[in-house]
Amino acid sequence: MLLFRERKILSLSSLLNQLQPNVRWNSSLGSNLKYKDKEAVQPDRSFKYADLSVRLAAPHQLQAKPNVSDLAFGKYFTDHMLKIFYYESLGGWQAPEITPFENLVLHPAAKVLHYAVELFEGMKAYRGVDGKIRIFRPDMNMERMNASAVRSGLPQFNGIELIRCMNRLISIDQEWVPHSEASSLYIRPTLIGIDPTLGVAASDSAMLYVILSPVGSYFKSHEAARGVSLLADPRYTRAWPGGCGDRKMGSNYAPTIHVQKEATERGLQQVLWLYGEDHQITEAGTMNVFVYFVNDDGEKELVTPPLDGLILPGITRNSILSLSRDWNQFKVSERRITMTEVCRLLSENRLLEFFGAGTACIVSPVSFIQYMDQELYIPTLDHAEPIHRTFFQRLTEIQYGYVDHPWATPIE
Amino acid sequence: MLLFRERKILSLSSLLNQLQPNVRWNSSLGSNLKYKDKEAVQPDRSFKYADLSVRLAAPHQLQAKPNVSDLAFGKYFTDHMLKIFYYESLGGWQAPEITPFENLVLHPAAKVLHYAVELFEGMKAYRGVDGKIRIFRPDMNMERMNASAVRSGLPQFNGIELIRCMNRLISIDQEWVPHSEASSLYIRPTLIGIDPTLGVAASDSAMLYVILSPVGSYFKSHEAARGVSLLADPRYTRAWPGGCGDRKMGSNYAPTIHVQKEATERGLQQVLWLYGEDHQITEAGTMNVFVYFVNDDGEKELVTPPLDGLILPGITRNSILSLSRDWNQFKVSERRITMTEVCRLLSENRLLEFFGAGTACIVSPVSFIQYMDQELYIPTLDHAEPIHRTFFQRLTEIQYGYVDHPWATPIE
Repeated sequence: MLLFRERKILSLSSLLNQLQPNVRWNSSLGSNLKYKDKEAVQPDRSFKYADLSVRLAAPHQLQAKPNVSDLAFGKYFTDHMLKIFYYESLGGWQAPEITPFENLVLHPAAKVLHYAVELFEGMKAYRGVDGKIRIFRPDMNMERMNASAVRSGLPQFNGIELIRCMNRLISIDQEWVPHSEASSLYIRPTLIGIDPTLGVAASDSAMLYVILSPVGSYFKSHEAARGVSLLADPRYTRAWPGGCGDRKMGSNYAPTIHVQKEATERGLQQVLWLYGEDHQITEAGTMNVFVYFVNDDGEKELVTPPLDGLILPGITRNSILSLSRDWNQFKVSERRITMTEVCRLLSENRLLEFFGAGTACIVSPVSFIQYMDQELYIPTLDHAEPIHRTFFQRLTEIQYGYVDHPWATPIE
Repeated sequence: MLLFRERKILSLSSLLNQLQPNVRWNSSLGSNLKYKDKEAVQPDRSFKYADLSVRLAAPHQLQAKPNVSDLAFGKYFTDHMLKIFYYESLGGWQAPEITPFENLVLHPAAKVLHYAVELFEGMKAYRGVDGKIRIFRPDMNMERMNASAVRSGLPQFNGIELIRCMNRLISIDQEWVPHSEASSLYIRPTLIGIDPTLGVAASDSAMLYVILSPVGSYFKSHEAARGVSLLADPRYTRAWPGGCGDRKMGSNYAPTIHVQKEATERGLQQVLWLYGEDHQITEAGTMNVFVYFVNDDGEKELVTPPLDGLILPGITRNSILSLSRDWNQFKVSERRITMTEVCRLLSENRLLEFFGAGTACIVSPVSFIQYMDQELYIPTLDHAEPIHRTFFQRLTEIQYGYVDHPWATPIE
């Protein structure tokens, strides 16, 4: 198990000095997420794994496990959950508890229900070829979750303690981790403000909970095979400078639902979010985006939008960048890319691949973009050995334990 | 009781033709809120007041009423609440029920807890000098609530039916409406998405509920007497074109809490939200803003930012504009105003008043703005007969029944 807190003790430069060429993953820790809140480091107070209590479900409470083919996304939940309460008036974090999966009881004025004082993470546990269960880079989720907490006025915690509690939860519900490489156990840590008062203010009480859901692929399999279709409509904006588009807060999602609905009604699967008068590409639905093309110098280049505050610092995004830089087979850039540039590359037959990346969707090829009046057919699936496929294979090899890699170590 | 639906049947032009000079309030209905979603008009399906069931609290469940001096904002709640469920699979809206005030039971995956699928309204019931209880322009809240629902992928309803249900709830808890003109009963209609699935999508099930809270003034009285102090920091943005800053969705509030905390730590009460490179003034905390000054032509002018999508279409804002236009004593403009303009007016001794307006705060004079490195002392409280005071008096006269006015008719 990689220890989040221990890593923090090492400076970035000392880490870089220790690097071997093929363990470049170290260099992408922490600093790459680009959070600047000084409070985001090392909270004074945290709950502790050592205080965890476990109350197991009675035999009659256990649910039947669904067929792997029925899974879809986030529809079924396992038998247990993790809960940790925070009350400022009781000294902060309380002892973590694992309980049977059950409904939450909330005061009708709870801040989460009125002012969206809420944030979450998305992670997965994979059943490897060796039967062991692995989580992928959980330390990065913990860092991002604490950064979201700072921006939401919610309490921080020690990430390693939560990882330990989650590992225990997963161990208890381990039979829910699908025996299938098309599936995994989605982990949803959630932090909500539960103060029962109507003032718009930081919440003095909070609840951190973790639920687990066995999932198949995010897109339906026939959709995935054809590639994802996107609606790029410059009338809608997901995030903006001075906002919190780089935090995984619930408030980033509600405004997208209406636009997503419009995409669905037009027969398109996801929204490609643009920003600014030059129609910069930012994210697609719940994915980071990558464009692979032949640049003006005739080189192959992989571009993804930069972490400038407008996009979520994805862990799959970070991993794809790290793998690319290790391979050193093509140019890799984190920079702005506009729809004008995409259209030009396409018209000059220089656009090779366009794909999304995220925990839920892994790597998803894009085959079509509806942009204003233009229907853009993207040749992502028309190549013999596309790089998006290589990324997908490399990531799933690591996640399912085909190779030993520090990004995915078995849980105890 | 003014009927929302009946008004809708009249076209705006026929309304304008009927206007008397001093009932100009009609012209500000509906069209002034500037919602363009065509779906926002006349939902096909709605719950009905006729189906309302009432389950009263048992005597031992009744709470003691707090002292008016202890009220503050949104801290105490009455004995009953209204609940209306929506299930797409059951044909939509279910029968409304009034029940004892009680906690909500939610699935841990409910969309409101992850993706901020939530919206609310803020209204008040006032106990008049004649002992009758009045609500102020509830039709406008209903229109705004339905517009928020459209943008959130949540179901719409017939506003008049909800007003009737709320009136019944208020009648039942009428002893909670404070016998004091410094206080009122705050009404919080809330609509949340409760689908227990993790996909980012419209919710097929929802819950509309209304809770009531006796409230004093939003600001502490010694603060209100000194005027409100604001932090204007252009690094933070509340809303942006293509977003949903003009809807009362929970997602507009979570991102403000961290900034509000920063203001508080600097000894300032609220945030003045700026937009764009020219630092346009948009809103202050949870209030619309007004600037009263002597313009370049030597006239007195009242300016408030326009309904361009960046600000909430406030009902107090709308009422102040209507009153001003009726009085016809100074120029009234809805237009952009920048910090540069405010600084210039201040330096030329032409800035007379700066105040906020909203249901919670009514009319709140601003006396200080911290803008970048500048400390701006605003002379809002230095006049013998300031207009913000006149607005406050006129609005409270209507709300507390000193005058008969169609904006506030007694509930049955």
